[in-house]
Amino acid sequence: MPEARASRAVIVAAGSELLTPGRVDTNSLAVTRTLNEIGVDVRCKIVVGDDREDLAAAVRAAIPQADVVVVTGGLGPTDDDVTREAVASVFGMPLEEDAEMVRVIRSRFDACGLPMPDVNRRQARVPRGAVALPNEHGTAPGLWIEQSGVVCVVLPGPPREMEPMFDRVARDRIAPRTGGRSVHRCVVRVAGRAESHVEEAVYPFYSRWRSNPVPIETSILASLGQVELHLSVRSETESVARRALERATDQLADVLGRDLVSSDGSRLEEVVGRLLRERGRRVATAESCTGGLVASRLTDIPGSSAYFGAGWVVYGNDAKVALLDIDRATIERHGAVSEPVARMMALGARARGNADYGIGITGVAGPGGGAPDKPVGVVFAALAGPEGAPLVRLLRLRGEREQVKLQASHAALDLLRRTLLR
Amino acid sequence: MPEARASRAVIVAAGSELLTPGRVDTNSLAVTRTLNEIGVDVRCKIVVGDDREDLAAAVRAAIPQADVVVVTGGLGPTDDDVTREAVASVFGMPLEEDAEMVRVIRSRFDACGLPMPDVNRRQARVPRGAVALPNEHGTAPGLWIEQSGVVCVVLPGPPREMEPMFDRVARDRIAPRTGGRSVHRCVVRVAGRAESHVEEAVYPFYSRWRSNPVPIETSILASLGQVELHLSVRSETESVARRALERATDQLADVLGRDLVSSDGSRLEEVVGRLLRERGRRVATAESCTGGLVASRLTDIPGSSAYFGAGWVVYGNDAKVALLDIDRATIERHGAVSEPVARMMALGARARGNADYGIGITGVAGPGGGAPDKPVGVVFAALAGPEGAPLVRLLRLRGEREQVKLQASHAALDLLRRTLLR
Repeated sequence: MPEARASRAVIVAAGSELLTPGRVDTNSLAVTRTLNEIGVDVRCKIVVGDDREDLAAAVRAAIPQADVVVVTGGLGPTDDDVTREAVASVFGMPLEEDAEMVRVIRSRFDACGLPMPDVNRRQARVPRGAVALPNEHGTAPGLWIEQSGVVCVVLPGPPREMEPMFDRVARDRIAPRTGGRSVHRCVVRVAGRAESHVEEAVYPFYSRWRSNPVPIETSILASLGQVELHLSVRSETESVARRALERATDQLADVLGRDLVSSDGSRLEEVVGRLLRERGRRVATAESCTGGLVASRLTDIPGSSAYFGAGWVVYGNDAKVALLDIDRATIERHGAVSEPVARMMALGARARGNADYGIGITGVAGPGGGAPDKPVGVVFAALAGPEGAPLVRLLRLRGEREQVKLQASHAALDLLRRTLLR
Repeated sequence: MPEARASRAVIVAAGSELLTPGRVDTNSLAVTRTLNEIGVDVRCKIVVGDDREDLAAAVRAAIPQADVVVVTGGLGPTDDDVTREAVASVFGMPLEEDAEMVRVIRSRFDACGLPMPDVNRRQARVPRGAVALPNEHGTAPGLWIEQSGVVCVVLPGPPREMEPMFDRVARDRIAPRTGGRSVHRCVVRVAGRAESHVEEAVYPFYSRWRSNPVPIETSILASLGQVELHLSVRSETESVARRALERATDQLADVLGRDLVSSDGSRLEEVVGRLLRERGRRVATAESCTGGLVASRLTDIPGSSAYFGAGWVVYGNDAKVALLDIDRATIERHGAVSEPVARMMALGARARGNADYGIGITGVAGPGGGAPDKPVGVVFAALAGPEGAPLVRLLRLRGEREQVKLQASHAALDLLRRTLLR
């Protein structure tokens, strides 16, 4: 690694459990955050099992792509902890027991009044020429290896041991070599447009931003009616990066109009909460098919009691009639999933909840309960407010039950957001 | 890939967002589950950004290690979706527009009454010699490529598109080539015990199971008061595997007693729903700090209208008094977060909701609102039933607001489960 120019990293995670259907490598997230802060990008992540050959192959594959290779896991005392051996073999360094490390490990056991099991001596083995990194929260030391311009940092798997060790290494040993051009990011959330329609609107900016004096990278992500644009900038100066990102999000605000939910990563329920609070308004909810999800999302936000006081989950028709005065004849005539019932639910929530706005949602979440005229995914979302008749949106949603619930809750919250913006 | 012997896979996930500190690849979990079921092990996972060269390099690195290479993501219509190009270049296949695929994609837009944006034509480009895999839940077709004994399956990134597509490919195209020693798994869910206490109880079985004639591998996973044991067995014969797993889960049921929630992977809300249905009982909810989350979890289960009719979110004190007849003097004397108020909420929900059971939850979700005697994380969960006085549990929970909500909802549902089991 040439001095003052470490900019690309590969992260290798070792652990057979990370190759099963139940467990995912999350150490790389903390490592990435720390790397980004000191101006290092992560180019690739590799997960391998507790296998010496596979791990050595992964590290060998990482070296030509990276200035920094970070390896996590497999430093324990047991037989299936093979990271020391694998890394030592890649760099051609023989493993030697470090007497000082044996002493340090033994003193940790002494402190608990326990004898040191003999297997733990393995953790004191250090490749000749490597630096052992002290572990303040466990027995396994980390390793720092430099060879032919590449740095390899080896870290223990448990997050409480790994994170403080890596924070220190990053600050003391890696940061002095980087250009110092931190990565700054922002997330823009969009509602009410499909991914490809967002792309069409935003596309003309991509190449312009990329050829900025401070180039901006963009990626677009979509799931269940929610689209996100991730913008990132690399700059030595925080204020330069912020200004570039602000200019870009201003341009997005122009083309996306009210479809832009937030440009600071705020979730829809946060944005709705902020608008309600600013305008001194309150909302109440009456939910059928969403079953309380809208209320739960509203109350995920700290301080939501300032604008949310009451909600009803009226799943059965009896509950609709008894709790919100929905006219039984209307239910019988139009069905529980209908525009008039959604409207009456919104009005009922607003009146009974002493609120400025009332949300009413009724629909077919599935998988059962669909009918030819009202198939699974048909949802009516209504909003009653201080002025005029309630607004009602007919949604035709796709997906499983929980996805229908989520999209319906999203549409209702977005209807409230747009109304508050008027 | 030689016929009837596909046993090792590498999974490559494409997406620049998967290299940021905020997002992790989870598609590989579903892919791994499906591969394991048909007897294919995952040897390595690689995550790369939306970069054609990096992605091509990852696929090239995967090929010598694997019989099956599964690539997810980057099949969208936009400029940063480069997977088709990268894979086509690795296998030396020119990309050609598939007229039939254009027709299929256009018909999806037609069905929603929208014009097809021109960018979506990109999704119809198929490497010459590859098979386009139809996508029933989105516009991007997948790809099946066979070359020199290696199979490469390319899948769209959104899970709802990816999972059904891969399930079908695995069953129809990959399974016929595998050795057939499927991995059979079961997930045992436990409530009411910390991970280390589950471990202590279960530890004596580990080594016994591992030296079974049909060895069982175990791993333990914990998050927020929920502990899972994952058991897995490799066997050609489904019935042999099932029997071994049943014997093991019977032993677990003996040592864990009612702390065992399910041994078929069912979530707590499913188990509660099944018990309510079997016993012909109904439940109603009154929630303060959980803000509708208990109701939402109950109604995540198809058919929940059979046992859930009504719920209240009584976030403010006025709502508690007005909607559930909670005595205002009791709130003033004991505070809204108190045992008597939780009890009255449970009784109110049961009475007003015409239910056999009423759940009442009040607590301090944080980050604000804590007091020396009732710090953030203090929650009272009450259950009123047909017999005797309501049960009330005082919980002292850790974590962020949403984690407190989740754990509180879990405790309330678990209280109902244990009561129904009596």
